[in-house]
Amino acid sequence: MIKKLLIANRGEIAVRIIRACAEMGITSVAVYTDADRHGLHVKKADESYSIGPDSLSGYLNVHRMVNMARTAGCDAIHPGYGFLSENPEFARVCADRGIQFVGPDSKVISRMGDKVAAREAMIEAGVPVIPGSEGNLSDVEEAVSLARDIGYPVMLKATNGGGGRGIRRCDDEASLRRNYDRVRSEATKAFGSTEIFMEKAIVNPRHIEAQILADRHGNVIHLYERDCSIQRRHQKLVEIAPSPQLSPEQREYVGELAVRAARAVGYENAGTVEFLMDADDSFYFMEMNTRLQVEHPVTEMITGVDIVQEQIRIAAGEPLRYSQDQISCRGFAIEFRVNAEDPKNDFLPSFGRITRYFAPGGPGVRTDGAIYTGYHIPPHYDSMCAKLIVWALDWESLIPRARRALNDMGVYGVKTTIPYHLEILDSEAFRKGSFDTGYVDAHPELTQYSVRRPTRELAAVIAAAISAHKGL
Amino acid sequence: MIKKLLIANRGEIAVRIIRACAEMGITSVAVYTDADRHGLHVKKADESYSIGPDSLSGYLNVHRMVNMARTAGCDAIHPGYGFLSENPEFARVCADRGIQFVGPDSKVISRMGDKVAAREAMIEAGVPVIPGSEGNLSDVEEAVSLARDIGYPVMLKATNGGGGRGIRRCDDEASLRRNYDRVRSEATKAFGSTEIFMEKAIVNPRHIEAQILADRHGNVIHLYERDCSIQRRHQKLVEIAPSPQLSPEQREYVGELAVRAARAVGYENAGTVEFLMDADDSFYFMEMNTRLQVEHPVTEMITGVDIVQEQIRIAAGEPLRYSQDQISCRGFAIEFRVNAEDPKNDFLPSFGRITRYFAPGGPGVRTDGAIYTGYHIPPHYDSMCAKLIVWALDWESLIPRARRALNDMGVYGVKTTIPYHLEILDSEAFRKGSFDTGYVDAHPELTQYSVRRPTRELAAVIAAAISAHKGL
Repeated sequence: MIKKLLIANRGEIAVRIIRACAEMGITSVAVYTDADRHGLHVKKADESYSIGPDSLSGYLNVHRMVNMARTAGCDAIHPGYGFLSENPEFARVCADRGIQFVGPDSKVISRMGDKVAAREAMIEAGVPVIPGSEGNLSDVEEAVSLARDIGYPVMLKATNGGGGRGIRRCDDEASLRRNYDRVRSEATKAFGSTEIFMEKAIVNPRHIEAQILADRHGNVIHLYERDCSIQRRHQKLVEIAPSPQLSPEQREYVGELAVRAARAVGYENAGTVEFLMDADDSFYFMEMNTRLQVEHPVTEMITGVDIVQEQIRIAAGEPLRYSQDQISCRGFAIEFRVNAEDPKNDFLPSFGRITRYFAPGGPGVRTDGAIYTGYHIPPHYDSMCAKLIVWALDWESLIPRARRALNDMGVYGVKTTIPYHLEILDSEAFRKGSFDTGYVDAHPELTQYSVRRPTRELAAVIAAAISAHKGL
Repeated sequence: MIKKLLIANRGEIAVRIIRACAEMGITSVAVYTDADRHGLHVKKADESYSIGPDSLSGYLNVHRMVNMARTAGCDAIHPGYGFLSENPEFARVCADRGIQFVGPDSKVISRMGDKVAAREAMIEAGVPVIPGSEGNLSDVEEAVSLARDIGYPVMLKATNGGGGRGIRRCDDEASLRRNYDRVRSEATKAFGSTEIFMEKAIVNPRHIEAQILADRHGNVIHLYERDCSIQRRHQKLVEIAPSPQLSPEQREYVGELAVRAARAVGYENAGTVEFLMDADDSFYFMEMNTRLQVEHPVTEMITGVDIVQEQIRIAAGEPLRYSQDQISCRGFAIEFRVNAEDPKNDFLPSFGRITRYFAPGGPGVRTDGAIYTGYHIPPHYDSMCAKLIVWALDWESLIPRARRALNDMGVYGVKTTIPYHLEILDSEAFRKGSFDTGYVDAHPELTQYSVRRPTRELAAVIAAAISAHKGL
């Protein structure tokens, strides 16, 4: 079994992985840049090491990270999400240097990271894909000709893209010609490659993704799906498990598709197969994320499975602890990304000092956060500073409980997405469980909230802060 | 449906009930004494009213409480636990004044509060009871004669007692004669009645209690059992659901006994039937608690049912939302009572100011608390200031997760039972899931911990506190 594990990440996901280590008796090792020296992951880990002053390259330097793990005597590295998590070279160097990488083999990361190769693998496995170019586009004329065949609207996408960047929708030939060079240019800047491909645009798509777990012994299971249709500019804001938009038959079908996809590429560890569900309820493979997802807690809430612990067990060579028929789905869970952003100001980041933080509590409430009273959110990183996860036995009870929990959570000193989430919960479409990825754009009124927190409560909070100040 | 509800209580249970109201769209009304004016329940409720300077009588004055509810326009009162929750007069006055009392009828409270009457009802219903006196003892000679029949050791108990007071064990005739007047005197002082009765003492008893829900339409269901064997001086310290000491057959049996008991007395609302399980795994009725229990969250964790919401629905006349076959039990949950006490100093209360509070988070962790950074725990009330509830899919995963969560929870400024709970988790007997109500007395070494929190973490906490101070 793994004895000592380095977490090549920061923020809430580093804290999440440290918690899994603590429960498994594994010594956890955190790394931090100068900007992160007061990070919660530094406080919570068993050991913490500086990786220097550069806030950006710190978490991205493959060789330094692996050397750090070797020096600290770690036998494993968990990459979290973002940063090096889907970098095949990182996985390869870990393997070469005798460190267990908590994730799939570097070849699988490469293959699934190449959208064209991934698409080909899915066609081979019989997983439905979005109609589009067979491989990369060679020039704009090929693109125009192909778009005539599959019909507008179409999407141009960077082959090595991800995270919602390097994607443009083209509604007619003129916009296709206009966007062709733009997407190539974006792809070069963001991903260092000019390769792009084309797909038919799916109308009113729902983003449905299935969580899978696969061990080294040929066992692959799914943990049902998540609905991540509530997005803003291709960034997920709210995630739900299971999807309130799926029938039990569709639920089984999506899970089976994901298992088939994972098997087809010899996948190992935790992974997510993302699908688009169109207006006719057809599913199309979109991409596979070869790492832990931000939204994994909603799946943990409905299945009871600790996904991070399972990842570490799989990396240690253990067989899965559950067969598919031991996995059941209870109730509904929702995750809100609490971002330090001002929704009223085009979601502009609102970095700074948390003057006061109150964690919510009570039934069905879980927080995965990296904030505390007095913490400065550094401006160098993602604005997502905490996740609020809420569970209830049924969808109808989940909505009011989620509202209560959001009101219960107090983050002062920075603007957050909390009031925006409260507006989402009050919208008719959302409550009915009917929404697609166009939801946020279709509801600009969601940012038109007034400050909702009752004055009396705020006054009490300020009084408490003053009282805390006096006593220190 | 109920529109506005007064919570005749304080502390964490008042906050718990306020949360249920918020989720149900019910306006919550808190009451507070002068000592409680900074209480979290005051901050969280929609409305709060002072009930005067007297810290003790404030929450105990039947007529003032009901008048307050009438004046505030409430149509219901939730009594929580303790205080007026099992006072039949309170339930009666509520009914007389047209206020829904969230609990059973006053006659049922009276009957189950009288231990002799309750025992008789159980015998009639075919629920096994502990061998003992038929009704109250008339004099010491009757006690001596009866003890010869049922065999030593025997227990003397105050008929109107509760909360572990007015109970003494007698191992032989001499101790019986000695204790007879003592228990009568204690009964008079604590409960205003000299009535006492005798029961056979159960050897190595496990405390097993079943949660029931009963509506006004004749539906009664159980939500499985809790194991509350970890007690100190008859006060529960740690509660678990379901009991790791029961087989599935015993689990069904206890649940059915509880339903039978509730039906026999025409019970309504949430209630708990407490049993002792002896060394031969026989069950004996001990008492019925006609109110919400401190430890109800562990049942909520394994069943997913929100017991407080169900209580309020039942009081509003709604039928139960679940039939027995819709109730299922998943995983194991444990609750730790975080008391402001010093276990190393005979659990002496450690009231005072919480200089810093960090709520735990991550998978399977729930907190029901009434504390926040800067809060002064008033010395007038119970030392229990928060409950940490932890859930996992199996018992083996629960222990390390519970340890992680206890380490994750930071309460500074007062001594707490957290380090004592960590010791319990490390004890062999506990980990094996084998313990009886003698566990705490049998393990005096549990208080011999050294300060476990790593110095580095504490230093970081202090640094953060200083940094928070600077910015205010």
